[in-house]
Amino acid sequence: MSANETVAQTLAGCLAAIVFEGLSETARQVATASIIDTVGAMLLGASGAVNAALQAALGEDLADGPAFVFGRGSRAGLLDAALINGASAHADDYDDMACSMGGRPSAPLVPVVLALGETLGASGAQVIEAYVVGFEAECRIGRVVNPHHYEGGWHPTSTLGVFGAAAAAARLLRLDRDRTVAALTLAASMSSGLKANFGTMAKPLQVGQCARGGLLAAKLANVGFTANPAALEHPQGFFASYDGLDNIHLERLLDHPGGRLEIEQDSIGLKPFPCCGSTHPVARAMLALRARGVRPEDVDSVLISVNRRRLPHTNNPNPNTPLEARFSIQYVAARTLLDGPPRLHHFEGRSHLETEVRSLMRRISVVAYAAHAGRGGRDECNEFEADVTVLTRSGDQIEANAPHALGRGGVDPMSSDELRMKFRDCASRSLGAAQIDAAFSALQRLASCTRIPDLMDLMSPSPSPSPSPVAAAGAARS
Amino acid sequence: MSANETVAQTLAGCLAAIVFEGLSETARQVATASIIDTVGAMLLGASGAVNAALQAALGEDLADGPAFVFGRGSRAGLLDAALINGASAHADDYDDMACSMGGRPSAPLVPVVLALGETLGASGAQVIEAYVVGFEAECRIGRVVNPHHYEGGWHPTSTLGVFGAAAAAARLLRLDRDRTVAALTLAASMSSGLKANFGTMAKPLQVGQCARGGLLAAKLANVGFTANPAALEHPQGFFASYDGLDNIHLERLLDHPGGRLEIEQDSIGLKPFPCCGSTHPVARAMLALRARGVRPEDVDSVLISVNRRRLPHTNNPNPNTPLEARFSIQYVAARTLLDGPPRLHHFEGRSHLETEVRSLMRRISVVAYAAHAGRGGRDECNEFEADVTVLTRSGDQIEANAPHALGRGGVDPMSSDELRMKFRDCASRSLGAAQIDAAFSALQRLASCTRIPDLMDLMSPSPSPSPSPVAAAGAARS
Repeated sequence: MSANETVAQTLAGCLAAIVFEGLSETARQVATASIIDTVGAMLLGASGAVNAALQAALGEDLADGPAFVFGRGSRAGLLDAALINGASAHADDYDDMACSMGGRPSAPLVPVVLALGETLGASGAQVIEAYVVGFEAECRIGRVVNPHHYEGGWHPTSTLGVFGAAAAAARLLRLDRDRTVAALTLAASMSSGLKANFGTMAKPLQVGQCARGGLLAAKLANVGFTANPAALEHPQGFFASYDGLDNIHLERLLDHPGGRLEIEQDSIGLKPFPCCGSTHPVARAMLALRARGVRPEDVDSVLISVNRRRLPHTNNPNPNTPLEARFSIQYVAARTLLDGPPRLHHFEGRSHLETEVRSLMRRISVVAYAAHAGRGGRDECNEFEADVTVLTRSGDQIEANAPHALGRGGVDPMSSDELRMKFRDCASRSLGAAQIDAAFSALQRLASCTRIPDLMDLMSPSPSPSPSPVAAAGAARS
Repeated sequence: MSANETVAQTLAGCLAAIVFEGLSETARQVATASIIDTVGAMLLGASGAVNAALQAALGEDLADGPAFVFGRGSRAGLLDAALINGASAHADDYDDMACSMGGRPSAPLVPVVLALGETLGASGAQVIEAYVVGFEAECRIGRVVNPHHYEGGWHPTSTLGVFGAAAAAARLLRLDRDRTVAALTLAASMSSGLKANFGTMAKPLQVGQCARGGLLAAKLANVGFTANPAALEHPQGFFASYDGLDNIHLERLLDHPGGRLEIEQDSIGLKPFPCCGSTHPVARAMLALRARGVRPEDVDSVLISVNRRRLPHTNNPNPNTPLEARFSIQYVAARTLLDGPPRLHHFEGRSHLETEVRSLMRRISVVAYAAHAGRGGRDECNEFEADVTVLTRSGDQIEANAPHALGRGGVDPMSSDELRMKFRDCASRSLGAAQIDAAFSALQRLASCTRIPDLMDLMSPSPSPSPSPVAAAGAARS
């Protein structure tokens, strides 16, 4: 970092170097998959209580406009679209994760790049580029302020996501470096969100707010609004007030593991199952056993070992509600062996009480790893590891190990088919089957999409939407 | 505070006890004067760069709606009105002050109570009541978190104002205690604003954002949106994250000096002159000398003594710009003796360079109080005191002392005439003279106003606005 530059100026300089043409195939694929996954999350959230309440609260403030709003019959203003879609993306805690950010990278970004991309008539490549720029911004700031930031009570998806949203919007608005700096430092004025409000509707609200705030910051910078270029490192600025200057790691701003962009780091991961992340390795191990032919009726007993930190919130042999089922290793393990990958309907209604799953759950024990004198003398597992040992009725012992959760990390991403199955599950609450597949296919081709407005038309819940003249013209061209 | 209650529940309980009928005459008068003063600030800000840039940035997101927007030809949505009017109210740093809050109490409140009051067809008494409720909320939280909060880099007008705005809106929406608690704790999710961005357009933006955020929090609570009732005192909540639980004074939440409401405390003050608050005591002393017949042409020399803390930013014998003139004791002193109370046009164009004022400025010396062997052996003055000694050409020595700034504190409020003159000065950028006086008179009668929509019609810059049928009907009734 040059001594003559502020942090925001240095960051803006790094971001300026990111252009679509320079992105690796991996970067494009990860970005595309994350955008698809977030659209799925928004389609799911569109039918939920947070989306409905937010629209009701906005009331007559929610005017018609040019930007697609998931869960609303007509388009709205860009800022309202970012707010509602951002909240929808995170409403079910089913959106992706980036360790360096300490939060969900895409929920603050995708609503912004889609709303702006649609309004500006941008291409898919431009949207991917802006997404990667925003991702880089929020994760780099995350490296500087974490782990203190997360531990200090902040909700990084929101408090850091606002910078990502601002950077992504700045790119689509083609802001120069000085105005990008203004967007980032105006975003610092709008960073908020507390972990105390986790478990309430305020959590996804915080994410919607940050998407809106980042977009507004860039729109303000675009018309010449000013802020202090040193607002991040100022003694009364973002780092000092949110974390304290002694608790941050400014040298990590330009830290670039392996010379790769943040989007290419292993830290990003999609969430394949609609239950607590701490239950995912177990689900993965059960899928492996299922693939090897283990059937529920063959099972005499199952012993599951996980890191002890997973137990307090997920060792639940008797979940009483669908929500509790999402946090029950026993339920997730049994359900996965019975039906394959857990889906949304498995955590709804009375699914968690079904006789067959309860019968299998009674045969499952869950322990902390150290208590299980494991193979090869290991008595510790990593944070997210899971070991499963099945004793069959015929006396065989079959073991499976999941070293980490599926979809977490670039080393083991979700396959295209797994992504499609998750997308179908999420989108089924808003769209019909044919529409879902058309939307998924179009999203897979995002990098070659010429006009985002055409793409957004596919998200409309109407079974046969009559395209606008503009969209029809765009479709005719492509 | 009951052990069974959260902080937000206790605060909501206190607020519930505030009703218009129970307000003292002092409370009503101070509230009315503060609302008038803030309307003046919004009329001034309406013609400024922040207002214009904000409207430009919102662009097509700024749709027509039911709420009056200062500086816009037509009404807009409530949230946009709160955002723009909040920023306008603080754009010129000419709005009021409350020490317990450590910031400007009214800029977050007045835009909210007027927008909601107008849309709900509320009475003036309801608006005053909601304003007093909001004032109480933001100042009480201020007592808990200050002085650490202000010193920690936060912009209390914004970070605490969001709670005031939420409480005021909750009252006008008639939320019950539980929903008021939700409004306050949702506001905690939207608290932001940094001192690092002082001196830029981001500062008033932060205030507009907090007005919008507080209003949104109440609107969300109104439709059943949830948050954690303990979000203020939670280990990962507002107090812990913004200040640290060791740095707050929770026992002050119910501290009620003299058993009076916050609005009745001496800490509130209006700003009578459009220049730095540190120059105000000097202006006040010069007004006293002027009233005693001292004329510029009689002056041989002037010695001004103030607390040394005032000097670094206001001892400027040669201001080169209108902005520098606002921070020059020499200019403010000379201008006041020449023309009476400083007005906006004295800090515009080339006023600070005029021959007459420069001639007088050359005869003025400014020193720290201790350097001036003063009357009665005093060698210290209080923070805001000013002593002025004039030596006349005929050899007389005339002295004046201002113990504090005019308009600061309940002990020496601005008179009704002074308030009117300031209002006229501010409003003259937006309204004609007749309109200004009509608006001022109507605002003075706020407590007996039956319909806020009629009041807001008077703020429209059109010289002869054609009243809406509803407004006309309302006017006919009154």
